[in-house]
Parts: sequence; C-alpha cells; structure tokens
Amino acid sequence: MELRLISKKNEQDKKIISCKNLVIGDGSLVVIAGPCSVESREQIFKTAEFVKGQGANVLRGGAYKPRTSPYSFQGLGEEGLKLLREAGDTFQLPVISEIMDTREVELINGYVDILQIGSRNMQNYSLLKEVGRLKKPVLLKRGMAASLEDWLMAAEYIASEGNDNIILCERGIKTFESYTRNTLDLSAVPLIKSMSALPIIVDPSHGTGLRSLILPMSKASIAAGADGVMVEVHPIPEEALSDGFQSLNFREFKDLMEKIKPLHQYLNQ
Amino acid sequence: MELRLISKKNEQDKKIISCKNLVIGDGSLVVIAGPCSVESREQIFKTAEFVKGQGANVLRGGAYKPRTSPYSFQGLGEEGLKLLREAGDTFQLPVISEIMDTREVELINGYVDILQIGSRNMQNYSLLKEVGRLKKPVLLKRGMAASLEDWLMAAEYIASEGNDNIILCERGIKTFESYTRNTLDLSAVPLIKSMSALPIIVDPSHGTGLRSLILPMSKASIAAGADGVMVEVHPIPEEALSDGFQSLNFREFKDLMEKIKPLHQYLNQ
Amino acid sequence: MELRLISKKNEQDKKIISCKNLVIGDGSLVVIAGPCSVESREQIFKTAEFVKGQGANVLRGGAYKPRTSPYSFQGLGEEGLKLLREAGDTFQLPVISEIMDTREVELINGYVDILQIGSRNMQNYSLLKEVGRLKKPVLLKRGMAASLEDWLMAAEYIASEGNDNIILCERGIKTFESYTRNTLDLSAVPLIKSMSALPIIVDPSHGTGLRSLILPMSKASIAAGADGVMVEVHPIPEEALSDGFQSLNFREFKDLMEKIKPLHQYLNQ
Amino acid sequence: MELRLISKKNEQDKKIISCKNLVIGDGSLVVIAGPCSVESREQIFKTAEFVKGQGANVLRGGAYKPRTSPYSFQGLGEEGLKLLREAGDTFQLPVISEIMDTREVELINGYVDILQIGSRNMQNYSLLKEVGRLKKPVLLKRGMAASLEDWLMAAEYIASEGNDNIILCERGIKTFESYTRNTLDLSAVPLIKSMSALPIIVDPSHGTGLRSLILPMSKASIAAGADGVMVEVHPIPEEALSDGFQSLNFREFKDLMEKIKPLHQYLNQ
Repeated sequence: MELRLISKKNEQDKKIISCKNLVIGDGSLVVIAGPCSVESREQIFKTAEFVKGQGANVLRGGAYKPRTSPYSFQGLGEEGLKLLREAGDTFQLPVISEIMDTREVELINGYVDILQIGSRNMQNYSLLKEVGRLKKPVLLKRGMAASLEDWLMAAEYIASEGNDNIILCERGIKTFESYTRNTLDLSAVPLIKSMSALPIIVDPSHGTGLRSLILPMSKASIAAGADGVMVEVHPIPEEALSDGFQSLNFREFKDLMEKIKPLHQYLNQ
Repeated sequence: MELRLISKKNEQDKKIISCKNLVIGDGSLVVIAGPCSVESREQIFKTAEFVKGQGANVLRGGAYKPRTSPYSFQGLGEEGLKLLREAGDTFQLPVISEIMDTREVELINGYVDILQIGSRNMQNYSLLKEVGRLKKPVLLKRGMAASLEDWLMAAEYIASEGNDNIILCERGIKTFESYTRNTLDLSAVPLIKSMSALPIIVDPSHGTGLRSLILPMSKASIAAGADGVMVEVHPIPEEALSDGFQSLNFREFKDLMEKIKPLHQYLNQ
Repeated sequence: MELRLISKKNEQDKKIISCKNLVIGDGSLVVIAGPCSVESREQIFKTAEFVKGQGANVLRGGAYKPRTSPYSFQGLGEEGLKLLREAGDTFQLPVISEIMDTREVELINGYVDILQIGSRNMQNYSLLKEVGRLKKPVLLKRGMAASLEDWLMAAEYIASEGNDNIILCERGIKTFESYTRNTLDLSAVPLIKSMSALPIIVDPSHGTGLRSLILPMSKASIAAGADGVMVEVHPIPEEALSDGFQSLNFREFKDLMEKIKPLHQYLNQ
Repeated sequence: MELRLISKKNEQDKKIISCKNLVIGDGSLVVIAGPCSVESREQIFKTAEFVKGQGANVLRGGAYKPRTSPYSFQGLGEEGLKLLREAGDTFQLPVISEIMDTREVELINGYVDILQIGSRNMQNYSLLKEVGRLKKPVLLKRGMAASLEDWLMAAEYIASEGNDNIILCERGIKTFESYTRNTLDLSAVPLIKSMSALPIIVDPSHGTGLRSLILPMSKASIAAGADGVMVEVHPIPEEALSDGFQSLNFREFKDLMEKIKPLHQYLNQ
C-alpha cells in the first residue's frame, strides 16, 4: 500500500483538524449527533438544542439521502441544508451533511462545516477529488466492502488534491452475520491509527443497525481508541422518515453521553 | 423488495435491448471484449480487429478508470474515448466505456453506444439517475458488496428516470476467499432472471482476477443461462497498464470463442 | 501451501477412484442422488429405484444428521444405514452417508461405499485422520468458511494417514448474500483442478438452498469442469423431514438428468 | 431461533459458573492466559507463575492442537496435559485445554478444570453432546462462519444433555478483510447478553491475529460488556511453536493487566 500524504510519519504524528471552535484529533472526544434526515424545522431545532445541551460537538442531518430504493424518502435537499445551517448557528454547533454528487459540491459547501462522503460513494473517485480541492474537513466513511487499504487509498485521493483535513469513520462492513445490519470492525480503529495520522471515529448506528447496541458499541469504540462517535438521534425515532430503528431518542442519548464522556476522560487521564 | 419497472411480469417477459445492429436479451450470445484501458491507437485498433474477427459483438475500453490508488494510471480520458469510437467505427463494433461522474455524462454519451456503471458506483444514485435520463443502453455492474436486492434497486433507479435499457453484469462479490480477486456468484444469473426481465451477462475477468479461470467460468456462465460475457483482451497482457493479469491474449481469446459459441448454440438449440 | 500427497504433479496427473463398478475422476459423469435423510424403507427404495432409472451412479441418504438445532430430526441412525445399504444393493447403486464421530467410523464403514465428511466437520482433524486409515473413498465437503487452502489441507490430513481416495465437494460458502443459503463458488472447480489431482464434484442443493437453482447450477458446474454433482431428491419434497426446500422431486430430477447427461457428453466429446 | 435452556428468562437472569475458587458470570473479570501450546515444563511453569502474579484467573495451554496442516506441530498430547495440570496446581490456577475428539473426553476431563471446544469443532455435534454429559464448565468458541444463531444452538446442544455450565467465547469471524486474521465481532457481546443468560468472553489473540491489537481490543471487549478475555502469552513469542505472532510477551501482558483491571473496575463500580 502506497500511502504518501496520510501515512503516519512517526509515533507522535497526528493530524489535528480544526473546525470552528472544535478541534478533532487532539485527544478530545468528538460526538456527532442528529437525525438521519432533516425532516422539519421543529425536528432539527429540537434535536440540535437537546444534543448541544448534552455535550455533542457537531450536528448531523441528511439533506440528500442515498436510499436503496428510488421510492423511499430522498431527503429535503437544499431546504434541508438551510434548516441544518440555521439550527447549527442557533445552537452553536458545526454541521455536517452528506454529499453525493460532484455537481452539488459548491452548493453543499456553502452550508456545512464538514462534508460527509458516505459508504456508497467511498470509491466515487471524482467526488473524492472534488472535495479534495476544498479546504474544509471531510468525513470519509468506510465502504461496506472496503478493505483498510481501499479505504486509506480513498483518503489518499482526497489528500492528493490538497486537502488532508480528513476524518475517517468506521461504520461496519458486510459479512454473513445478519443479526446486525453490518459488522462493526473495531479493530480498524487501532490499525488505522498505526498506519495513518488521521483521526478516526465510529458510527455505531449504521454499524449495528440496532438501537440497543449503540451504547455498548460506543463505549467499546472509545476504549479501542476512537476519537469519537457519530450517532443518530431523533425526537421520536418511531416516526422518523429514515433509519428510526437505529436512532436514539433523547433519553437514550442523554444516557449515552453520561456514560461515554466520563469513560473517555478516565481513559485519557 | 419493491420492483416496479424492471420486474418480470410473467414467465415470458424479457426486455430486448437494441444497440445498432446488436440485439441483447433475445437469446443470442453477447460477447463484449477489449482491453481494460484504451492505451494507444495501435493497441485498441489491433484488439478491435482481432475480437471482431473472432465474433465479439461489442468493443470495450476504459478511458476514465476507477483505480484504487490515485497514483495508478487513470486512463487517457477523452482521447481514449475518441480512439475507442474510431476503432469501433472502423471494425463495425458498438463500443462501451465506463462513466464515473455526473458531469461527464454528456461528453461520454457523445462517444459510446453503451454506458457502463462500474461496481464502485453501483450505488452512486446521482449517476444512476443521470444515465436514466438518456435512452442509451446502460450496463450496470453489481457492487462488490451488493445484495441482489441492492443491485436490482439500483437498476430500478435508472428505470425510474425513464430508461429501462439496462443490462446487468455479475462481476463477483467480496468474500473471505482470497485466491480469487472476487467470488463470482453465478447463482445470481438464474435468480436475477427469475425476478427481472432484464438481460444479464457475466464478467469473469474481474469476477476471478485470474486469466486461467476466464474460459471455464465463461462456459459456466453460459450454462447458468447468462446472455453473454464481458472479457478483457489485450495484445500483450504482460505490458498492459492495468489488469493485465486478468486479460486474455489473442490466442486465448480465439480459444475462448471457439468454445463458447458452439456451447451457447448447443444449449439454445 | 504445502501440499505433498494430493498435489498435481503434472498436467495429466489425475487421481482415478474406483468404487465398485463406478470410476470417479476419469472424465465420466458422477451423479450422487437421494434424500437428505433416510426416512423410511419406502422413501429410500422408491428414490433409489427412480434415480437409478435416470442414470444416477451413487445413492445418498443421511442417517446421522448434523442439524443446527438439537431439537430437529437427527436421522434414523443405524436403522437408516441398514435401509440405505439394502436400497443400494437392491438397485445396484454404491451408497454414501455422512460420518460425524470418530467412534462411529467402524459402524458406518460397515454399511457404506463412500464416507462423507460434511462441511461442519471439514476441520475435525481427528475424524479426518480416522477415515484416512481406511481404504474406502471419502467425499470431503468444503467448510462454509474454508479457503481453498484450508480445504486442500484437510484433504492432505486424510491422505497423510494413507488414504488418497478423496473426492472433493464444493457446496457453497458463507457470504453476505442471503437470497441463497450459501454462495456456490464455482471458480473453486478449475482452481482445485489446477492445484490437485483429486476429482471434484458440486452440491448445488446445499450450495444454493433453492430448488429452482439446482438445474442451472448443475449445468454451470459441469461446464466449469466438475466431475459430477450431488443433488437431493425426495419422492415428496414438501413432506421431507429435512431440507425439502432444496430437494428435487422425481419429475425435476428426470429433467435434470435429461439436461446434464448430454451436456457432459457434448463438453467431453 | 428456539432457545430453550440457555435463553435469558428475564433482565436479571445470569448464569453464574463456579470453577474451583473462580466465579464466572457474576460481574467479576475473568482473564484466561497462557501459551497457545504447552511446549515444555519450563515454558508452562514460567508462564503460569507470571500470569498468576499479574492477576490472571485461568491458565490456558493447548495439548491437542487443531492445525491447518498435518505437517505442523500438533501439540504434546497427554504429556502436555500433565504439565498444564502441574503448573495449574503449583500456582493455584484452574486450567483449560481444547478437546477435539469424542474419544478423548474422559482423558482430558481427568486433567482440566474447563473444557474448550474450538472454532473448528463448534458444530461437531457429537463432541458437544459428549461434553454436555459432564458437569464441568465448557468454553465454547464461536465458529469462524457461525451466525449468532448457529452459535447459541451449539450451546443449546451442550445444555440439552444436562450441562449448562457454558462460557461463550467470541474469537472473530471470517470476512473479506485480510489485514486481521479474523474480524472480531464485538457487537456479539451485548447481543448474546440480551438473548442468553450465559457469560461471554473475548479472545482478541485469535480474533485479530496481531499482537499490537490485543490491548486495544481487550479494552474494547470489556467496554462492550464482556465477562473477560482470553489471551495468548508466551515467554518468548518469537520462538513459539504455534501462533507466536499473536502472543503477548510478559512485559506486554503486565501492561495489559495494568490497563484492563482498573478499566473493568471503573466500568462496574
């Protein structure tokens, strides 16, 4: 594997990424929280307010959604981005949203603080190069069948265009086990950290597809050395237009934060 | 799975696709052959002449290549498309090439007869929708971790925009077996044919990654009911700029055609 | 991989196995047919008579069944072996049955002509060594997660004890695809044949778990170069005590034989 | 899935297993440590003394080894069991060793305190039933391609014969990712705990196959809720007759214990 720009040069080598007031990769805990999709002003504002109150650092919310079926809810588009931006500004949270099309880079870049490349587009090299021409942080999710090498080389694509503000995100791989939506590969966390200077976080919502596993797998992620987690939170998961079964409600998110913040502190003292 | 447009309505339902003089899906054998990448005028012309002489129906040749590393040969771009088009016209072969970016649809559409969506972009929904707005045949490769449902829904995305001239292409899935580059899932052929009216072909070059397996797996594909095969052919595979290890040389391609044409005839008599 | 005893010494090297009047590995077609489990005298006799009439060469029938649940039907045990033996003798068919326990080797050896090691016991090395001390042919199924190397080394275990009368049987591997019970890896057929002198057959019943796929995948197996197939046949699959959903009824088996015998002849003329 | 004997009857239901002075499943931390194979008196005694000193609760050591190749070191057999027993008695550690053959149950039962069923024999139902007739604790490793259902049903086999003193052990599953020997599926820990009352531990040595991952994945396992870990420790891993690349040396084991004991305490306070 020929890593040139994102490799770890020495034991101490760490890429520190700044995003507004937030610093990622310096040992602090990043918690990205919010709904799978932005559905309404009320939904995103209520969620933003709550997750901010519990200590989340970044607000997530999909506007352009990659759905398996063309007949499923596809997101609110630019209207969703506007609502996300407003909610982020109101509650002082940087915002992240997924980008799926090279033609939308400029538009989405105008609204978000971190650009997300989803699993399905991890090897959409045109898109990787396009976000590589920006300066803004990019969160690069692992593809469902991507080896560590495939994944790091995808990051190298972004870096090769000039942008090495890359946050990797493990979100599970496809295996024969069908109890969980995907199999969360936590060994990727220390392995990536040994090969690359980039920060890495974990998405236990997509990684397991089961609400009940988000808390234990978030704790495990942090214990494995992850820089943070990305979790889906919705005011009423049962009524979510997408992925409700893997979203936490407010009470569950509060519980999560009460467990993982001190755990992270304990592990990094 | 909610298939609306590409489902099989009854036992006899078959989508017949016309592409210049070629008909796909009517029971005849489609053989798409050519190099992984267009490398030079000489290379593509020699290959086109040879494969045409052996009975191939479509000329393949990559111009925009999805390579795992940004530092690998990325294809000749538009120059490659021009050479491919010329070679196709000279030897009366429709041509196919891969498209990776929504912004390149118009350009590539101007040169090719069939648009290819590769494995890595099988769930690049923006791209699927964009080629769905054309009338031209689209060859949709299965993603490396795509279930049959994921794959058929990707085809449904294309069809939902108005274009149901879709040829599916099985090209192997990722499994624990590392002897082969991928594991060719031939059961997908009869399964897809029971669920959808679309034609399906097999790519044993990518499906196995081993030159020696192309002949036996091509025969197996045809015996399983595939409408054809897509194979990589190069004048001197050892000198190919990409994928030489899974490309046939001319003698091997001649041998392949001498075996699969009569086999197909025997099976469909 | 260190293959000593079962490796292919040269291009022509083929292990020919004799079993009563049957010869395996000489280019002729082996068809092993019969029910998943021996259930009654009537069932096994009717099946034996029918499959013999259609040209099957070996009668299969489980007596000791490896079932996922301890509460499922576990087979008739020795009574099943007796019935299988009688049916085989009556219709002049060699018989095969699975062995799961080193302590039962002597007993089962007294009844069958070919000993089967199932997928779940492919790395039960004590059992492999034990059947290696016999002279009788052993059919070794590939484990559900066994790489080609794991599988060939398991065969080497048998051979290392003195018995190289080994027939390999591809029966599908576990992958993320859940439409089929397993993913039949037909590329294993030519690959194994390039590495080892042993004959290899394919079990499309377990390999796909779907009755409708048995015919197309049997044809594909033979086209890929397999020495034969092993299929489940039951007088009334809907009433089978195990695996009915992947068993052919008599009419379907007749149809299968009418297709694969001439195909094999065509391919080997 | 029809779990009768090992299912979780209510939220508080926990199977507590006693083994000499050790209690497993009550919330305390179990650490099983020792070499892959017992190689000599000096090796096992030195290891036993050291791991005991660091707080390990159980001494592991293979005597009958399931090796992929028949030409690899197969273990010392009964001599290995004797040395293991002596070392355990000398340093007051219960001992565990793997059993692979129904005929060896009585012999091995005479030496060890916990019987281990390895991955390759997880669906060796004869063996499961045989250890089910004992009263002694059984550690049941997950098969490399075993779904949670397959695994729990294997435990049910043991319990159905009367022995529900079962400790489950997650040790990685086979996936396309080849950087690690297996992919450790830590989501299995909370999932199993929600379905069954049985305790579950994790083996990060086999689960990753990389020494450097043992510490982070042990921490992650405990954070995910595991009852303990099983790790390979060897005085000089570089000279181990088996699996040295995934064994900790003494210094590394000391470091592991210094990290995981307080972490477990922190998480369970």
